[in-house]
Amino acid sequence: MTNTLLLLTQHNQQYRELLAQKQLPNLTILDDSDDRQQCEQQANIWLAEPHLAAPYLTLPTASAATNKLTLKWLQSTFAGVDALMSPQLRQDFTLTNIRGVFGPLMSEYVFGYLLSHYRHHSQYQLQQTQQLWQPKSFCSLQGLNMLILGTGSIAQHIASTARHFGMTVTGLNRRGSVVEPFNQLDNIDNMATHLPAADVVVSVLPNTVQTTHLLNSTTLALLKPTAMLFNIGRGNAIELDALQHELTQFPQRHAILDVFEQEPLPPQHPLWHCPNVTITPHISAPSFPTQVVDIFCQNYALWHQSEPLQYVVDPVQGY
Amino acid sequence: MTNTLLLLTQHNQQYRELLAQKQLPNLTILDDSDDRQQCEQQANIWLAEPHLAAPYLTLPTASAATNKLTLKWLQSTFAGVDALMSPQLRQDFTLTNIRGVFGPLMSEYVFGYLLSHYRHHSQYQLQQTQQLWQPKSFCSLQGLNMLILGTGSIAQHIASTARHFGMTVTGLNRRGSVVEPFNQLDNIDNMATHLPAADVVVSVLPNTVQTTHLLNSTTLALLKPTAMLFNIGRGNAIELDALQHELTQFPQRHAILDVFEQEPLPPQHPLWHCPNVTITPHISAPSFPTQVVDIFCQNYALWHQSEPLQYVVDPVQGY
Repeated sequence: MTNTLLLLTQHNQQYRELLAQKQLPNLTILDDSDDRQQCEQQANIWLAEPHLAAPYLTLPTASAATNKLTLKWLQSTFAGVDALMSPQLRQDFTLTNIRGVFGPLMSEYVFGYLLSHYRHHSQYQLQQTQQLWQPKSFCSLQGLNMLILGTGSIAQHIASTARHFGMTVTGLNRRGSVVEPFNQLDNIDNMATHLPAADVVVSVLPNTVQTTHLLNSTTLALLKPTAMLFNIGRGNAIELDALQHELTQFPQRHAILDVFEQEPLPPQHPLWHCPNVTITPHISAPSFPTQVVDIFCQNYALWHQSEPLQYVVDPVQGY
Repeated sequence: MTNTLLLLTQHNQQYRELLAQKQLPNLTILDDSDDRQQCEQQANIWLAEPHLAAPYLTLPTASAATNKLTLKWLQSTFAGVDALMSPQLRQDFTLTNIRGVFGPLMSEYVFGYLLSHYRHHSQYQLQQTQQLWQPKSFCSLQGLNMLILGTGSIAQHIASTARHFGMTVTGLNRRGSVVEPFNQLDNIDNMATHLPAADVVVSVLPNTVQTTHLLNSTTLALLKPTAMLFNIGRGNAIELDALQHELTQFPQRHAILDVFEQEPLPPQHPLWHCPNVTITPHISAPSFPTQVVDIFCQNYALWHQSEPLQYVVDPVQGY
């Protein structure tokens, strides 16, 4: 059987070259510079960024001509596939995402900013401009409590890094069963009982109905006055106005935000100027094409042998 | 047998309180606010910062009266005891230092600054002031080469952290035997063969004759144009003028310096203004009194039972 692959990414040329090196059997590659109708009619496999694929996947209206989409399998180049979860979009294909490669990158992000904060990088940077030699007392990460919202492969990697640095780690999910490398796990419905003990809270939650504004004025008020909050999952988990209010009330709290409900965060948003907020442009764990291609090739080998794919997204849970 | 302990630290009051809680048997505590002659005549054990103890330890001159120092054991509160290694000082006592507690603190320091550099903290900090949402490509720590000068307990902890982040780690020492968690070990005499491959070089070397200016114009010239160099051991390992010349030639190199031959680094030193140098005031791993007291108590229990102490410094090697 011949397969036709449609590339829908910002790096189609790079993907085309990487895939050519792999010499995958029975695979023809198109991309969206080709005739759109031809793509839709011929490509049974898509390798796509979710937001670029979404416009191709709108359900046909009653009045429209028969839709000839032949898509059977879409491999997302991202972990987050919320852009494909709208009820206005087709779900009549197998959707797989990227897993297992973002944990190390997100750990780098979290511990870079965590250590930068706890070890007073800004203070020493300022002192250097003043030629000032002035040690400042600090608190080691050893013994601090980290609370991770989410317990999937990314959360597990962050937890293992935290354990390496001597932290105690609690993970929250929808089951509450015990999983290494967490010190303890609980159901996310019990989040309020864990927030007051956390020195560091890290959200890696996906964008679902249940996660929207989980961190709001009620729950944020439970944080320690010195708590650090990371959002590297999806922007919907935090009610930004409530966060900004809490950060103004507690200047020793600090938020490190990489994801937002609206991206880019609009230039006029007051959060840009909040002294105890660090804003980064969704860079904690980009998809490196070489890693995406490795996962695609593993899945293509399974597909070619009519075996079940790995990293299949559950359309009900949305992750 | 009754023991008398002399405290010679900048935090005598805190040490006195911590030791009181431990209720060590047969121990009287003095400190340097007491009569000096009494201290010297009565104290058989000192808990001291090396540079504060050194003035008490000058060898008696031929013309001086008989020196009545009764010191038998000096527990340093620091790891580095080079201030006690001068040939003008007595060596007729057992010297122990602090080990095992600095590795985690120095790992925090190294990986805080390493990640801050590789993940472009300064760039994003600047962009935030401009309300600019602009992702920048970066290189993960995964697969980078770290070269550690030294292989003791501190180096081992840094190496294990580097391995956690997916780096490949080479350690250099004076024996070259293979030790976990390094990927490879070699003799420090072969340093020149390892420098060109290193993305990150970390010196944790002690101050000895052999380590002085090991990193000089000849060896620094072997570094990659993008290499990062950490010095968290002792300042003597680097010839600062040569480093500054190399950093000017290679603006993509970056040095993170916590220790210097002269501390504090004088305010007029040009290195303060070097854009690719980060200067911190010897803060990578301070001695936390609670940890020092724990080690002192373990050693005091051994002393009380006339058993060999742990962490004894070899006066020939100087560490």
